[in-house]
Amino acid sequence: MTEPVTAAVLVIGNEILSGRTQDANIAYVAAGLEKLGIRLREARVVPDIEGEIVQAVNALRERYHYVFTSGGIGPTHDDITAASIAVAFGVKLIRHPDAVSALSAHYDPGKLTPARLRMADVPEGAILIDNPVSRAPGFQIGNVFVMAGVPAILRAMFDGLASRLSGGERMLQHTISCGLAEGAIAAELEAIQHRFEAVEIGSYPYFRDGRFGTSLVLRSTEPTLLADAADAVRQMVVSFGGTPDEQPSG
Amino acid sequence: MTEPVTAAVLVIGNEILSGRTQDANIAYVAAGLEKLGIRLREARVVPDIEGEIVQAVNALRERYHYVFTSGGIGPTHDDITAASIAVAFGVKLIRHPDAVSALSAHYDPGKLTPARLRMADVPEGAILIDNPVSRAPGFQIGNVFVMAGVPAILRAMFDGLASRLSGGERMLQHTISCGLAEGAIAAELEAIQHRFEAVEIGSYPYFRDGRFGTSLVLRSTEPTLLADAADAVRQMVVSFGGTPDEQPSG
Repeated sequence: MTEPVTAAVLVIGNEILSGRTQDANIAYVAAGLEKLGIRLREARVVPDIEGEIVQAVNALRERYHYVFTSGGIGPTHDDITAASIAVAFGVKLIRHPDAVSALSAHYDPGKLTPARLRMADVPEGAILIDNPVSRAPGFQIGNVFVMAGVPAILRAMFDGLASRLSGGERMLQHTISCGLAEGAIAAELEAIQHRFEAVEIGSYPYFRDGRFGTSLVLRSTEPTLLADAADAVRQMVVSFGGTPDEQPSG
Repeated sequence: MTEPVTAAVLVIGNEILSGRTQDANIAYVAAGLEKLGIRLREARVVPDIEGEIVQAVNALRERYHYVFTSGGIGPTHDDITAASIAVAFGVKLIRHPDAVSALSAHYDPGKLTPARLRMADVPEGAILIDNPVSRAPGFQIGNVFVMAGVPAILRAMFDGLASRLSGGERMLQHTISCGLAEGAIAAELEAIQHRFEAVEIGSYPYFRDGRFGTSLVLRSTEPTLLADAADAVRQMVVSFGGTPDEQPSG
């Protein structure tokens, strides 16, 4: 078995921490990384404070193969991500000529204000990430990918950079939901987990319309093992009088 | 000015990192803390791995006044939060008699399985957090509040423990949205930020129906200062031909 390829997401933005905005970017990047066989191992949200961004970026880029950031790359005074990443890497912030070209082509004459030109500033050595929505690019430096916070732009950027990433073995997933309570099946489920140690088995209670149920999520890179474990879970659910509702999504 | 009361949220759960589930708990706790005058300074999501939980809890509880965790306190083998928090605090996991009573009263005779009884296990010295939805309690140890991951339960737990928290000065907020682009007003906005250094001014572009606009969010604990800064932003928006759409939410 090869070592898994790992990643972290760093969301930069006071608006998430104040509760003003519900983050949607962690879930999007998480789902995208799943498809590439990259394991998202951690996510953090930090405020628009240089020291906080520097500390988080340096902790995460050391620990994981890839780091994806969202937020703080616009034209206003509170957009300090590019400058903070430059500090984290100990390099200068430079005005990237290709970014200037992209912005110049996008804005009408006279509209490329000094504030907008700041969006062409990236840490020295960075490679641009295309922004098909509003042109101001993201960038990659080392293993850190810096993207916009606006979900529509983040999605376009992430989809465009997927080809730069080296994935690993894809985690296959098989979900079996049932109307049984977690506590009723917990001992038997644990026994199945012990039998199939290479399969990650998660149990997620849900509460809808006043009723509890449980989704059992099996994950593994090995299709045969996953199928065998799913068989065992299915039989267990049936033995408790449950009706398995299955979603294989390998 | 008094020192602000600070907090962090720690979401524990593979299902968020795999993209299977969109977290809703960070935003809920964030909004609730705002009302209490507590500043949420960081959020993290970590997997169901003891070492990761221990490391994150210890980093966060040292750094912030309060830590709120969500997830991993159910009856199944993958629910390892209570045991991990005990490790983080260097104390034993004990079966709490009041938790046993609550569970005993809730389940029909014979239904309180050994797995369900595990939900009465908390770190020694912990104080219970009531769970009005499904009875299995959360707990508080030191400055760490451990809650369920199911949003309906987390919300009930959080609402119930609010009276245990000592808040600080409430951050007042005033939002001015306009159809102007961030880049057009950035220089003037920065000048206003320099004039009002004790007001946190955030600029958040939005993209809806193919059009960009900007929400300018002003935050301060000082009502007069906030009103003065809002006046300046409003005048600036009007001077650029924009129509300010205001949401004072002090």
